[in-house]
Amino acid sequence: MSGTLYGVGLGPGDPELITRRAARLIESAEIICYPSLAGGESLARAIAADLIPATAREIRIDVPMTRDRAPAQAAYDTGAAGIAQALENGQDVVCLCEGDPFFYGSFMYLFARLRGRFDVQVVPGVTSLTACAAVAAMPLTARNEVMTVLPGPLPDDILRTHLRAADTLVVMKVGRHLPRLRTLLDSEGLLAAATYVERATLGAERVLPLADAPDDAPYFSMILIAKGADPWL
Amino acid sequence: MSGTLYGVGLGPGDPELITRRAARLIESAEIICYPSLAGGESLARAIAADLIPATAREIRIDVPMTRDRAPAQAAYDTGAAGIAQALENGQDVVCLCEGDPFFYGSFMYLFARLRGRFDVQVVPGVTSLTACAAVAAMPLTARNEVMTVLPGPLPDDILRTHLRAADTLVVMKVGRHLPRLRTLLDSEGLLAAATYVERATLGAERVLPLADAPDDAPYFSMILIAKGADPWL
Repeated sequence: MSGTLYGVGLGPGDPELITRRAARLIESAEIICYPSLAGGESLARAIAADLIPATAREIRIDVPMTRDRAPAQAAYDTGAAGIAQALENGQDVVCLCEGDPFFYGSFMYLFARLRGRFDVQVVPGVTSLTACAAVAAMPLTARNEVMTVLPGPLPDDILRTHLRAADTLVVMKVGRHLPRLRTLLDSEGLLAAATYVERATLGAERVLPLADAPDDAPYFSMILIAKGADPWL
Repeated sequence: MSGTLYGVGLGPGDPELITRRAARLIESAEIICYPSLAGGESLARAIAADLIPATAREIRIDVPMTRDRAPAQAAYDTGAAGIAQALENGQDVVCLCEGDPFFYGSFMYLFARLRGRFDVQVVPGVTSLTACAAVAAMPLTARNEVMTVLPGPLPDDILRTHLRAADTLVVMKVGRHLPRLRTLLDSEGLLAAATYVERATLGAERVLPLADAPDDAPYFSMILIAKGADPWL
């Protein structure tokens, strides 16, 4: 009897935003798996630190940050092989994932390698999307409004099409793209409607009008744009 | 000193998907507020039932289901007035909200009426969006993919524009619109990529290819469409 692979969403960073189901799975885990980026501390492990049993075996997947995707793929191949071995031995494995596993989550790389062969259960988590909206006190969508989520690294022409079509826009992965995105939003007449949110629920969070945001935004930053004026009343 | 208004996301339905912060707020609440639709049971209250203290005062907002929005607005006006009175007396009020308060959430109607006058804190919750993805074992977005959330009642021409532009589409509020949506998706060549999810984490959940879904879908149903083929590897 093989073990079960759990892909567990941890939410946006505040350990209090972990769900009760995720907390219970982590607290009773025999084997915990998590990624870390480029040899640094694992954010996923840090979020869940207080819940991880001292007795748990930990599988760390060290993901290199290279433009070429092959080294990261090799790291996930190795991690998946280690997990597969534990599952074949009948042990369950709890994989930690910031935010939600299936919304830009690192767990997808393990899911793609292990599904079909093993029982996989995914525990959804609070996304950075609604965490940023909560921190900014800014409703995202009501009634029949359309929302589009846009990664900031995309080229301007793709972004522009969506900026014009949707009622609410969320730009993720802003980072060093902030000056270009601000120029684009200004040219579309959306600068006044744009709010910048940095490190939501991660500590030292900041909420600013995009017009006042720093040029050197951190990776964990987001832009929220709501065209509707109190449409939820 | 006025009290604090908490808008608390409860997640998609399974009480285990309530966050630890939401659970603590509910467990220690003096006053709990929640909506119910058209005199029926309150889904929000049902999700949180095990956490609500027997001693808590409950403010129920009975929202009429009419095409005209005025009766619902009047119900929220009355509810907000009752909440304001408690806040002015220095009591905190915990408002329960299915899913996430700012993602098609009922709390927005109270937020619009009470913000500015009182301290308001929003606790984000797991959305039905990622809950459906988890139940369907279907990753939503990886890397630089674009996702658009579409309410099903929108007309075909608006839906079609977005269906063509984004990599991942999520159609909410499907209900009686299912036959029309299925015809539209078929005409766009997206039927094979479309998955139907009903009552995710609410019990008696169902996951089907959209082609096999029932014409009379319940209100709590969703269609997920991912154009990418294992783009997360």
